[in-house]
Amino acid sequence: MDFVLGGARSGKSRLAQTRAEASGLIPVLVATATAGDAEMAERIARHRAERDARWHTVEEPIDLAGALRREARPDRILVVDCLTLWLTNRMFAADHVPPEDVDAAGRALAASLPELAGPVVLVSNEVGLGIVPDNALARRFRDHQGRLNQTVAAVADSVTFVAAGLPLVLKGRFPEEM
Amino acid sequence: MDFVLGGARSGKSRLAQTRAEASGLIPVLVATATAGDAEMAERIARHRAERDARWHTVEEPIDLAGALRREARPDRILVVDCLTLWLTNRMFAADHVPPEDVDAAGRALAASLPELAGPVVLVSNEVGLGIVPDNALARRFRDHQGRLNQTVAAVADSVTFVAAGLPLVLKGRFPEEM
Amino acid sequence: MDFVLGGARSGKSRLAQTRAEASGLIPVLVATATAGDAEMAERIARHRAERDARWHTVEEPIDLAGALRREARPDRILVVDCLTLWLTNRMFAADHVPPEDVDAAGRALAASLPELAGPVVLVSNEVGLGIVPDNALARRFRDHQGRLNQTVAAVADSVTFVAAGLPLVLKGRFPEEM
Repeated sequence: MDFVLGGARSGKSRLAQTRAEASGLIPVLVATATAGDAEMAERIARHRAERDARWHTVEEPIDLAGALRREARPDRILVVDCLTLWLTNRMFAADHVPPEDVDAAGRALAASLPELAGPVVLVSNEVGLGIVPDNALARRFRDHQGRLNQTVAAVADSVTFVAAGLPLVLKGRFPEEM
Repeated sequence: MDFVLGGARSGKSRLAQTRAEASGLIPVLVATATAGDAEMAERIARHRAERDARWHTVEEPIDLAGALRREARPDRILVVDCLTLWLTNRMFAADHVPPEDVDAAGRALAASLPELAGPVVLVSNEVGLGIVPDNALARRFRDHQGRLNQTVAAVADSVTFVAAGLPLVLKGRFPEEM
Repeated sequence: MDFVLGGARSGKSRLAQTRAEASGLIPVLVATATAGDAEMAERIARHRAERDARWHTVEEPIDLAGALRREARPDRILVVDCLTLWLTNRMFAADHVPPEDVDAAGRALAASLPELAGPVVLVSNEVGLGIVPDNALARRFRDHQGRLNQTVAAVADSVTFVAAGLPLVLKGRFPEEM
C-alpha cells in the first residue's frame, strides 16, 4: 500500500497514476469526488481527460473501505483520488457526526488496507502548512486531515511527498522504483 | 539543540516527545499555550493526556528565554511546544510592539540556546506554504514566523521537517538516531 | 537552469542570491515586483538592502521571457525573483485573459529557458499546502501556480525546496555544490 501526499496541483494525482500504469496491472481509479458544482465537475472532466483508455473508474464518495474491499484483486491496482475529498464528504454528508467518529472512520479505513486482495495507491492533500484558518470548521477539517494522513502513513509501505511534480520519499520505496 | 518543524497535526509534537523520552533524561515540557478559550483548553488537555507520567510541565507564554535558562539542567531534556504560540503571545500580548522587536526577541532567544545547561528540543509550525492571507496581520505573523524559523534553524544542531508523522532531516541528525 | 521553491519568508531569495554570488559570474536580479502599495514598496526596499553592491537590477513585471532573452549572457547569472509575483501580474494586469492563456504563458516561459545565452536561477512560492481558500480567484491562482511550478521544474537542471532557510534537493544538484 502506497501513500502519495502533496499540495494542490502538485502533480500528486499524476504521479499516482503513472506508478499504477507502470505496474502492469489493470489500473482502477476509485474517485471520491462528487460533481456537486460546476468547478468540481470541470476538475473531474479534466482529470478524466488526462487518464489513458486502460483506466476503469469507480465512484465512491462515502464508503471508501467498502469500495476498496469490493474492487481489490491481485490483477488490479487501485488508485484512491483522494482522501481529502472523502474526508470532506464524511464531514459534510453527516454534519451531526461528532469529530471522533470522523477520526474513527479514518482508523477503520487504515486498518482495512493491509487486508485487501490487491495493491492500492492512496492520494491525499497536506493542508496544514498555511496560516491558521479564520473559521472553526476549517480548523477542525485541518486537524482531521492531519490525523488521517498520520494514520494512513503509519500503515503504508511507502509514503511520498510531491512538490512541483517531483517525488520526495518519506518512507519506504515504491515497488516500481526498487 | 534540536528543531522540529511541521504543519498542523503533522505529528511534530509527538516526534519531539518521543525523542525526548528516548534520551533517558528527565523530560520537561515547556508549554507556551495559554488556555484562553475552550478550543485551546481542549487542545492542551488532549496533548497532556498523550504524554506519559514521567513528564514535568512548565508553562511560559512570554519569557521563553528566561524559562529555558531556569529549567535547563544536564539531567533534563526540555521540549518547547511551540514557538508558534510563543510568537502569537508576543505579538498579541503587546500589540504596540513594533515588528522589529518581535524579530529581535526571536534573535535573542536563538542566541541564548547554545548557552543552556542542558539539551532542548524546539517545536514550531511552518505557516508560509499556503495562499497569501487576506488580512495584513496574518501576513505580518507569517513573515515573523518565517524569520523566527530561519533564525532558530541557523543555530540548531539538527532540523527535522515532519509530514504525516514522518521525519525528514533538513540539517544534522538527532542524537538518538546517530 | 535552477529552480528554488519555498514558502513565504523561507529564505528562498537569499539561497538563490547566495548561489548566484558563489558562481563568480555577474549577478543580475530580474525583479517581477511592482511597488504597487506601501507594503510591497517596503518589501522591495528591504530585499534591496540585503543584496550586496555587485548586483545589477532589472525590473520586468510582465514580459519575463523577453527580459531573460535580453539580459542573459555567458558572463552573467540571472536571478528571477519571483515567478509568483509574475503570475500575479499576468493574472491581474489582464483580467480578461482566460485561464488557459496564463498556463500557456508559463509553458512558453519554460520552453524559452533552455535557449538562454547564460545561466538563470528562478525563485517561486509553493502555495498549495494550506486549507482550500474561500474565494474562487485564490483557488484559480493556486491552480495556476501549481501548474507553473510543475512546468518549470520539469525543464530545470536542479530543483530545491527551501524551509527555514535550509535547502532540500528535489532534483539534480546546484552546480556550485557539485
